[in-house]
Amino acid sequence: MDSRESLLAHLYTVGTLENVDGGVRFALKNRLFAATLTGVSRVELDGRAVPPADVTLELDGREVVAGDLDGGVPFPLRRIVHVRVVHPALDPGTHILGLTINAEPFGTLSFTVADGVVGKGDRHGGRIPRADDNTSPAVILERRRFVERVTGVDLHHVAQYSGDPAETEGNVENFIGVAQVPIGVAGPLRVDGEHAQGEFLIPLATSEGTLVASYNRGMKLLNAAGGVTCTVADEAMQRAPVFAFDSAREARAFRDWVNAHLDELRAAAEATTGRGRLTYVDTFLASRFAYLRFNFTTGDAAGQNMVGRATFAACSWILERVEGVRHFYLESNLGTDKKASQLNTLRTRGKRVTAEALVPATALEQVMRVQPASLARHAQAANVGAFLSGVNNNGLHSANGITALFIATGQDVANVAESSAGILHTELSSTGDLYVSITIPSLIVGTVGGGTGLATQRECLDLLGCRGDGKARKLAEIVAGVVLAGELSLASAISSLDWVSSHEQHGRNRA
Amino acid sequence: MDSRESLLAHLYTVGTLENVDGGVRFALKNRLFAATLTGVSRVELDGRAVPPADVTLELDGREVVAGDLDGGVPFPLRRIVHVRVVHPALDPGTHILGLTINAEPFGTLSFTVADGVVGKGDRHGGRIPRADDNTSPAVILERRRFVERVTGVDLHHVAQYSGDPAETEGNVENFIGVAQVPIGVAGPLRVDGEHAQGEFLIPLATSEGTLVASYNRGMKLLNAAGGVTCTVADEAMQRAPVFAFDSAREARAFRDWVNAHLDELRAAAEATTGRGRLTYVDTFLASRFAYLRFNFTTGDAAGQNMVGRATFAACSWILERVEGVRHFYLESNLGTDKKASQLNTLRTRGKRVTAEALVPATALEQVMRVQPASLARHAQAANVGAFLSGVNNNGLHSANGITALFIATGQDVANVAESSAGILHTELSSTGDLYVSITIPSLIVGTVGGGTGLATQRECLDLLGCRGDGKARKLAEIVAGVVLAGELSLASAISSLDWVSSHEQHGRNRA
Amino acid sequence: MDSRESLLAHLYTVGTLENVDGGVRFALKNRLFAATLTGVSRVELDGRAVPPADVTLELDGREVVAGDLDGGVPFPLRRIVHVRVVHPALDPGTHILGLTINAEPFGTLSFTVADGVVGKGDRHGGRIPRADDNTSPAVILERRRFVERVTGVDLHHVAQYSGDPAETEGNVENFIGVAQVPIGVAGPLRVDGEHAQGEFLIPLATSEGTLVASYNRGMKLLNAAGGVTCTVADEAMQRAPVFAFDSAREARAFRDWVNAHLDELRAAAEATTGRGRLTYVDTFLASRFAYLRFNFTTGDAAGQNMVGRATFAACSWILERVEGVRHFYLESNLGTDKKASQLNTLRTRGKRVTAEALVPATALEQVMRVQPASLARHAQAANVGAFLSGVNNNGLHSANGITALFIATGQDVANVAESSAGILHTELSSTGDLYVSITIPSLIVGTVGGGTGLATQRECLDLLGCRGDGKARKLAEIVAGVVLAGELSLASAISSLDWVSSHEQHGRNRA
Amino acid sequence: MDSRESLLAHLYTVGTLENVDGGVRFALKNRLFAATLTGVSRVELDGRAVPPADVTLELDGREVVAGDLDGGVPFPLRRIVHVRVVHPALDPGTHILGLTINAEPFGTLSFTVADGVVGKGDRHGGRIPRADDNTSPAVILERRRFVERVTGVDLHHVAQYSGDPAETEGNVENFIGVAQVPIGVAGPLRVDGEHAQGEFLIPLATSEGTLVASYNRGMKLLNAAGGVTCTVADEAMQRAPVFAFDSAREARAFRDWVNAHLDELRAAAEATTGRGRLTYVDTFLASRFAYLRFNFTTGDAAGQNMVGRATFAACSWILERVEGVRHFYLESNLGTDKKASQLNTLRTRGKRVTAEALVPATALEQVMRVQPASLARHAQAANVGAFLSGVNNNGLHSANGITALFIATGQDVANVAESSAGILHTELSSTGDLYVSITIPSLIVGTVGGGTGLATQRECLDLLGCRGDGKARKLAEIVAGVVLAGELSLASAISSLDWVSSHEQHGRNRA
Repeated sequence: MDSRESLLAHLYTVGTLENVDGGVRFALKNRLFAATLTGVSRVELDGRAVPPADVTLELDGREVVAGDLDGGVPFPLRRIVHVRVVHPALDPGTHILGLTINAEPFGTLSFTVADGVVGKGDRHGGRIPRADDNTSPAVILERRRFVERVTGVDLHHVAQYSGDPAETEGNVENFIGVAQVPIGVAGPLRVDGEHAQGEFLIPLATSEGTLVASYNRGMKLLNAAGGVTCTVADEAMQRAPVFAFDSAREARAFRDWVNAHLDELRAAAEATTGRGRLTYVDTFLASRFAYLRFNFTTGDAAGQNMVGRATFAACSWILERVEGVRHFYLESNLGTDKKASQLNTLRTRGKRVTAEALVPATALEQVMRVQPASLARHAQAANVGAFLSGVNNNGLHSANGITALFIATGQDVANVAESSAGILHTELSSTGDLYVSITIPSLIVGTVGGGTGLATQRECLDLLGCRGDGKARKLAEIVAGVVLAGELSLASAISSLDWVSSHEQHGRNRA
Repeated sequence: MDSRESLLAHLYTVGTLENVDGGVRFALKNRLFAATLTGVSRVELDGRAVPPADVTLELDGREVVAGDLDGGVPFPLRRIVHVRVVHPALDPGTHILGLTINAEPFGTLSFTVADGVVGKGDRHGGRIPRADDNTSPAVILERRRFVERVTGVDLHHVAQYSGDPAETEGNVENFIGVAQVPIGVAGPLRVDGEHAQGEFLIPLATSEGTLVASYNRGMKLLNAAGGVTCTVADEAMQRAPVFAFDSAREARAFRDWVNAHLDELRAAAEATTGRGRLTYVDTFLASRFAYLRFNFTTGDAAGQNMVGRATFAACSWILERVEGVRHFYLESNLGTDKKASQLNTLRTRGKRVTAEALVPATALEQVMRVQPASLARHAQAANVGAFLSGVNNNGLHSANGITALFIATGQDVANVAESSAGILHTELSSTGDLYVSITIPSLIVGTVGGGTGLATQRECLDLLGCRGDGKARKLAEIVAGVVLAGELSLASAISSLDWVSSHEQHGRNRA
Repeated sequence: MDSRESLLAHLYTVGTLENVDGGVRFALKNRLFAATLTGVSRVELDGRAVPPADVTLELDGREVVAGDLDGGVPFPLRRIVHVRVVHPALDPGTHILGLTINAEPFGTLSFTVADGVVGKGDRHGGRIPRADDNTSPAVILERRRFVERVTGVDLHHVAQYSGDPAETEGNVENFIGVAQVPIGVAGPLRVDGEHAQGEFLIPLATSEGTLVASYNRGMKLLNAAGGVTCTVADEAMQRAPVFAFDSAREARAFRDWVNAHLDELRAAAEATTGRGRLTYVDTFLASRFAYLRFNFTTGDAAGQNMVGRATFAACSWILERVEGVRHFYLESNLGTDKKASQLNTLRTRGKRVTAEALVPATALEQVMRVQPASLARHAQAANVGAFLSGVNNNGLHSANGITALFIATGQDVANVAESSAGILHTELSSTGDLYVSITIPSLIVGTVGGGTGLATQRECLDLLGCRGDGKARKLAEIVAGVVLAGELSLASAISSLDWVSSHEQHGRNRA
Repeated sequence: MDSRESLLAHLYTVGTLENVDGGVRFALKNRLFAATLTGVSRVELDGRAVPPADVTLELDGREVVAGDLDGGVPFPLRRIVHVRVVHPALDPGTHILGLTINAEPFGTLSFTVADGVVGKGDRHGGRIPRADDNTSPAVILERRRFVERVTGVDLHHVAQYSGDPAETEGNVENFIGVAQVPIGVAGPLRVDGEHAQGEFLIPLATSEGTLVASYNRGMKLLNAAGGVTCTVADEAMQRAPVFAFDSAREARAFRDWVNAHLDELRAAAEATTGRGRLTYVDTFLASRFAYLRFNFTTGDAAGQNMVGRATFAACSWILERVEGVRHFYLESNLGTDKKASQLNTLRTRGKRVTAEALVPATALEQVMRVQPASLARHAQAANVGAFLSGVNNNGLHSANGITALFIATGQDVANVAESSAGILHTELSSTGDLYVSITIPSLIVGTVGGGTGLATQRECLDLLGCRGDGKARKLAEIVAGVVLAGELSLASAISSLDWVSSHEQHGRNRA
């Protein structure tokens, strides 16, 4: 039987060993992955075993005797199980706690740790107030008061929120209030997608002046061009663990083994998730490392947690079977979550979506006062510039629109890091009109989970008809359309400043 | 005298030519850069000149006769000047308007445009309601009602804001309400910076569960290590225009000319700004293009607009003096605003800031349950992974902390695109402790301007003691310290899952 | 019936229309891909058809009547077929030639071109002398004399070659002599590969002083470490065409169609080659372009031509079946032949090979006078440097050894562009020794074809036991081992200059 | 007095301590930088001092008493000084040798090393034969015989060289013969440079069939366009050391110190070289490392060794003055010698040179059978492809021409790694002609030093009129012109295969 201390270590919360009425209590906090507790087979205090009958588990107010967990106690992510033991009060100071539990799908975990018993009174000195029901009005107020006392700042506005703080559980810890980010509305934008069809008013949450106005002008232009056509070409969400071996040859053999066991890996991974599907596993070898990049579809969720859990399960399945692994890390910089990478641009992260339009010269001239040729020329000079600078977006500012939509609709805004990559392509058509497209290769959006259920975010998703299941691709199409509006608007502004060009047409500068 | 139609084109707002009492009116909206109107020397309608005495300018309720602008009328960015002409009512349909104005520092601009006269009634059909006083409660409500009517969505929560909407002017257009983003508080974090000194409670605005808790654990670890040392090494904000010539040799000559006229360029650029200082101009040649990258310091503002204006002024100065420029574009993908680039990593955008700590092995083991060697080993495997993936951050997830702080403190969140770059460096010290640092090469922060004056954002800046002048470097130091906390926390979590490693120490897997 | 003018245009050689005894002659040179001529169905001169019986083909001295090509005439790459027509002598000046031929596997090609008849005498004025037997001693001498006359330079040494010039056919055109590149010998190097086993003397062709000596020292060190272990992990050779469509959606549909027809594509591709095998096709979408990256194994040849031909055949197969392709180009910068790219590093081009060794501290100190820790520390600083500079090799100078071996062994030396990428990884072992490896992700080597049959190159391949079939992986292993020797040698030299470090050990610089 | 063991360690050659007539002898080999020995102040054998009068130095046959070195003995790079000591014969086994010498410009160096005495007879067992006069016919023959004996291969052709082997000294060690690389001649190419003017016949050393023919066709096209215009825009050669400190703040202070002492650094650096000039020092900070990138001009030499020596001298000057440096390494992956990097593309390495031409549509159609629009369209698709693949050259195959010219003209061919970067730019002119340019940002060429003096290489340089001083820029221009010819030729070939496009013009595929 394999015991995995390090894993359990991740469950145990230091500094929680305490004397309570009739016994001793400590906390297990699940910081890892959802699990089911199916047994507690050993509790030792300072080397002395406690009979199972004297051990009780508390979760969400429920209390269960540890010896009687039939079927198991659900142990969701980020929740705390308190373990209560019938035991004489412990002296202040350090004690040794031993524990063996069974948690599916991770099997038997056993662990020994030293922890110090502290009185309740020590807790709230300089530390942020917390409580078991950590989003009750009382503890939120206590926390805000604490912050105000420590910093001398009146959090008047931060405290003005309209949603139920309990709804923020799963979104934030130590809640004290909200940041209010102004929303401007732009549009309507006519979108011709496979999922988004028709005209959309676009809520943009931003503090950058002119952003809404600029996107609005771009939308007007796109509408004049008959709308923007949007296409989702691919989707993927990744986690990329690394396995270290003693030699390159062993790493290669491991890669081959993995490729031969994809069906089993898929089964292990998908057992942890309802929506997630393992599509393929990319492998990369360097030195004596084998990097595996697990690619999933994740339904309408952005899915980072889902694929982390599923990949971890697949890796657990591997680690139980493969000899010779010297080290294992669940992430290796080949997933490139929250980071821009060439790999994401190549192989898609989130959605790969293209927005395109054929903009008539007349529309461009009337709405933007520029010639198609001027934009095309700028795109060429900007392509050379992009090649020089090593930028991950040869367009102009897609991050602006993406960020504003992400904040408004409850996306994980840190994903702007990946989502801001872009491939702009501009062509003069044979009729002198302007074909323009932007491909966003790693747009991370979801319409369920994350911040999509928060009060204002929910409303903004509703504005777009993008809340809930079956809407993620629709949202991706809208985001891409908005981004193209912004590109056209800013490119036109830059091109309209090319007074050299405008003179040239009138023949003044040419000898 | 040079007339710059294209520039003026950018000032004129299509669709505003209208009959009003006693005459005709049209609008000039400044979408470019702050200027001063010093004269209107020509107004023509359908080819017929209007006497200067019959032309009146309206700005902010003030009315001035065009022939009598002595000293000039300030024309701020994004503001509208209405030009009113004594003239018989125009027939519906298209009319030709000719205009010559003088606007400092851009000189004389002249322009001819066709515009259509529309009746007032056509305006509010399917379009978003607007008014001159565009942040009055009435128009905001009208706008929200319009959105609700079109989409059938009740914007109950979006409408709950506590600040004065008028304060959002300059931050957003077409304001309809706010996105409420939950704030959790973490810390305190002990920071040893040159500007930030002491313990800070950190407001993190996010909807990503566990983020606050994870950063909090990292802060606990850093505190146990005596705090985090933070250093701002450099600062720069850029705009990078491109000049196209007939040949590479002309582009080279231009580059040399620019290098010989830096003092004049500096004078022209700095005349447009109180805070901005031109530090140096980088030049890059490719094909027959000359790319100039203007580098500025911008005081405590993030400064993108400031440097755009200043660079444009410098380019205007150039364009008046240099022959042979075939095209000019104010941006070329070498500024890489809102985008990740190798160039930013190399040469700094915003602040270049490093957070570092020497974490004792004992602290790491007690707080995180991992060994220093395990983190060091992970960093090495992750470095190879980063090299393979072409990622712009060899660390783990700095975007998470940065984004949460950016939303809370009113930064331009789209700058996460650049700010998410990072260079993590991890070393085992000779004593077995862990030296760890992260350098953020392009952290864009400001403590004045942008969203820093919004109600909740102001409070969060106050929490950190970072509001107003003289605080930008302090904020940069705090952000970097928070980021390092997050790196340590997640790296520990990943390393603690390396049960292979932990077994190895107990000799079980090694034959 | 589809006629493909542009393809045929590529076969026709301008400036060859000439009067000969009894008729008129012109040349078709195959600059494309090996084919078989199976018919000439139309020859027209100035609009007048020539009867098939009056048309004769000449290839390699053989003459065939065009109407009687049963089974077809082989038409190898770079060979010329002369078409001779019974016809009265043409007047000097321009004439119109029409031609329809059938060439398998490309089908019927038809073409009309204007060409000028020139007298033989005009040919040799300022132009480089050529002849049908272009490597006869006479024409080589004539060519060299021509060059000497034009430039006034005596090509004494260039003329000193020992091989048979006829053997250079297929390697060079317009042969005039040889460049003599000095070869130094290093080693022996003990290699523990799967294909290369034992000690090897290494011929290095270079003009860079100290290179041989430096690699030699590295080999001595590797031998002291028990030799270098080498492993080929993957192999691939690519060609990456692009297909342009009217919209992103069509490009996506095309990608799906391709993925559904891989077996047919494979059949079409492999029909053109004996050694080549299509392993997989990577697809990348951006804008309305579909990029296909065909991956092959190519036996023991480097294989660029082989995969070009095979990919073109597969694309021909596609183009005959798919509607809506607007443009097709056989290369698109996703094959990245002769260029360094992230994609090659990720997904292998040529061979992916790793050389690794565990170097005992004592060996390093005795042979190189440095400590393992010093090299490990340098590797870390160099990793950060690599991340800053965006270099495609975090090691030191693998191009040196690779180039010297490539010249010596008849590789395509321009492939140094790809082959110089590298991933160096250095670890201190728990025993204080130094694990070091280098992975070369895109090492392009062959042991058949290309320059491997040239006189001196053949001898150098024989030195290594690497000539002919079944040897390419062996050669890759040896190259990697040599490269690692060079890395250790230069890294030691750099580290031994760290006198700060060496002082530190003696406690002098630390207060 | 500072003693720099590690530096001296680099001078001493292990395994040379030997008994000779009347004493003991050992060797110092200068593997570092040219120096002048100005004194030997200490020689100890097994702890016993030897009187200065008993110590003699031998260099190049000259013998000098160590106590009487007035003015100093020159000690060139890669040369050996034998130190002979009057001393009783040493027993076989290990002895301790102590030595203090003075070598300008490095100052006093002192050193203690253990070495083993071996008899002469042990030397030539399995080792490659060497001699003091290592390029005499006798030792070359002995070496070749050794290789032939060990490998069983007859080196008949390798032995056929026409130059004097002694001339290879400084280019190669352990010379055994030459690789003969076929040279084909192409051209003439009409070049309109600032240094190269007129028509040039181009010697291309290659084993890749069709290369010469393909470049030749491109040259024909360029000539038809009136020739190729070439411009050198910049030049630089770099070495980039790294200094490690205890903290980021110290690294920053160091950077500022360096910037304040550039004149002194320049003086120290330039003292070591006649041709080299320090132009500027770029600084990059990350973690607690300060990276300095020294930029030099190097006259007509490629200059890597020159700038290595000069940078080392500057760093020595720094290290004697700056406290707190923990580690120093002379290279850090920011010089990116022999490697492709974004940094080189941005900031030039070697020469930055652009070749450009305006190719008339008629010339393109006649010589290449393609339309300008077809090439322009391909360039656009290839730009998107380049952006996806992360390639360092958006053109096609500049490495081919560069490599062939490098081998022919005695360049350091490993520099193909850097030199193969390129920026291709293609524009349709308003007249329908094709403007095309390629910028090579890091072309490393020299016309003195390196392999430029070898027999055949000298002749090829003479062919181009590019031998000796004042010719490097001329050579750079010619290389760029040749490269552009190759780009046009291959781009035309690829475009001419676009039969879709050619059909489209005839209206067949469009419904």
